[in-house]
Amino acid sequence: MNAIPERTLMGPGPSTVSQRVLRALGSPTIGHLDPRYIEIMDDTCAKMREVFMTKNPLTFPVSGTGMAGMECVASNLLEPGDEAIVGINGVFGARMADVMERMGAVVHRVEIPWGEVFSDEVMAEAVQKHRKAKVLGIVHAETSTGAHQPLEGISKIAHEEGILLVVDAVTSLAGHPVKVDEWKIDAIYSGTQKCLSCPPGLSPVSFSQAALEVIESRKSRSQSWYFDVSMLKDYYLGKSKRAYHHTAPVNMMYALREALTMVLEEGLEARWERHAQLHRRLRAGLAELGLDYIPKESLHTLNCVGIPDGVDDAAVRARLLETYGIEIGSGLGPFAGKAWRIGIMGHSATQANVDLVLAALVDCLD
Amino acid sequence: MNAIPERTLMGPGPSTVSQRVLRALGSPTIGHLDPRYIEIMDDTCAKMREVFMTKNPLTFPVSGTGMAGMECVASNLLEPGDEAIVGINGVFGARMADVMERMGAVVHRVEIPWGEVFSDEVMAEAVQKHRKAKVLGIVHAETSTGAHQPLEGISKIAHEEGILLVVDAVTSLAGHPVKVDEWKIDAIYSGTQKCLSCPPGLSPVSFSQAALEVIESRKSRSQSWYFDVSMLKDYYLGKSKRAYHHTAPVNMMYALREALTMVLEEGLEARWERHAQLHRRLRAGLAELGLDYIPKESLHTLNCVGIPDGVDDAAVRARLLETYGIEIGSGLGPFAGKAWRIGIMGHSATQANVDLVLAALVDCLD
Repeated sequence: MNAIPERTLMGPGPSTVSQRVLRALGSPTIGHLDPRYIEIMDDTCAKMREVFMTKNPLTFPVSGTGMAGMECVASNLLEPGDEAIVGINGVFGARMADVMERMGAVVHRVEIPWGEVFSDEVMAEAVQKHRKAKVLGIVHAETSTGAHQPLEGISKIAHEEGILLVVDAVTSLAGHPVKVDEWKIDAIYSGTQKCLSCPPGLSPVSFSQAALEVIESRKSRSQSWYFDVSMLKDYYLGKSKRAYHHTAPVNMMYALREALTMVLEEGLEARWERHAQLHRRLRAGLAELGLDYIPKESLHTLNCVGIPDGVDDAAVRARLLETYGIEIGSGLGPFAGKAWRIGIMGHSATQANVDLVLAALVDCLD
Repeated sequence: MNAIPERTLMGPGPSTVSQRVLRALGSPTIGHLDPRYIEIMDDTCAKMREVFMTKNPLTFPVSGTGMAGMECVASNLLEPGDEAIVGINGVFGARMADVMERMGAVVHRVEIPWGEVFSDEVMAEAVQKHRKAKVLGIVHAETSTGAHQPLEGISKIAHEEGILLVVDAVTSLAGHPVKVDEWKIDAIYSGTQKCLSCPPGLSPVSFSQAALEVIESRKSRSQSWYFDVSMLKDYYLGKSKRAYHHTAPVNMMYALREALTMVLEEGLEARWERHAQLHRRLRAGLAELGLDYIPKESLHTLNCVGIPDGVDDAAVRARLLETYGIEIGSGLGPFAGKAWRIGIMGHSATQANVDLVLAALVDCLD
């Protein structure tokens, strides 16, 4: 009853998880304070720093899915009354604004049409208007539209006014360059189930020294106990002794360590190039089918295309799933029923999968 | 490098995870909106209702460890300015008070010495003093001391004043009777890594109809987006369509389903009896070693005993771990260095393990 079916995961995540990572996941559970577990955790955090391209000591997996990472960042950096600038060009920017408002922050929304990306000029204007802002939040990889946001110019603009840069990299980490130190990102969160191809359940985060200083000089406690970095750091970074905070998700940590190991074995640049190549291959095939990309600057990892007039969205996705075992994503928000989201992420990003999706779409659109 | 060692987990959790659950955990990841996954999730929630002995529709696993369940309950039930009564007789009562205060609640702490349990009289007095309280929070199984709190009298006292009863059952669920409907518990949270013997990472929760009505009549939004039941229920309970909230921890759900299946195969009453029998066996053996229990009303699942004078706490635990591969827990708070916590939970609760712990203690105390 309820057997788990075979799927080819080509949607917005989760991506297909490798046998290696599944085997690591299913290893025997040990205690979260076991000295051997602490070694495994330290190794995981060290590898995470490499993948984030950062030396930030405060780099660890939050014990929840990607949105837990978002909430961890917001709840630690913001206090009631703080001001935040948030760029909104899709679901996840809007969500970041929502989460920050729940922390009591005054959020200045900078909105542009879904699918577009923010120019430096637009953000410079927002920063000039709200110079007292504590953070500027922006989505690097907007999973709802496939838009790929450049960050370097905006980072400079924010830092010139002493504003911390907060980045959502859920769908870009390990699929696109995400250079935390070089780009001076102050707080970043990602998910395990996208280009890392680990099951969903953890959220890699990293905080810069400047972010940590802001956290350490808070006037009020974080609204969240579960995500409170002032305590979590004593577990993840404790020197002589690791202080118990909550019971770490031990098996998910095994899986994440294996997934990060596979990323580093391949090499970040080779991995980015693989995603780029397969994106070009998919894009060329979709063009032949007459399917147009919605964003001008598209991610390689998430390909959002318009559904041709007269095509039944749900029927095509159901047929892909039932006949081919292929999952692709539906459109979100204004794109519901109007767009498909095809993921090229991590272990799912193979030429075989790309060609299979194209062949299946030819059949289903026939 | 960093291979995972063999351990016999006899501490305060995680407990040993069975091969069946590990195999389920390592099954292929599928999408969180896949119709087959929704079936698996629904089946998991149905089994969770059986284990909680409730008909509450709003019964689901929070996507985080046990403390995420605590925060989920607090952040949904409480608004700034609300009053709460919290019983504190150990770490987890104190933590509940902390979490509720971070939600902006005014918390009335009812404190008794660690290791003791609350009488109906003490709680009746507190309720009479704070009749405007919205919730009364209490720990059923205080993992820090091993105290086993009776709930039925206190439930009646709370409900007579229209106060919701919130219960921490992290260390009791599936090891002791936890009768959510019969005892009229309004909100309860547990963990997967104790008597369910599933890896840590999810927190089973259940909300009564009265609790749901309180949530639906909130004046302000929950401070937490991640734990917001008003949105989560559309994913876990959606009728025609499941609304995406966050990416569910797919593989952990597989594991939890298998763990709950094993609990129901054994039967709740048989399972409680197994824990009771093994507790008596351990207790008799510990008495022979001259080790006394700290709480008068001890849990079966968590056995907290004083360390004899002159015995080196850390050295004994290190030797148990290194020579026998046995993990037991250290004392917390005032019991740090003064107590051990020996777990008898779920798949770890076997006669072989109890006898092994006793034999190993004889050797280590020699």
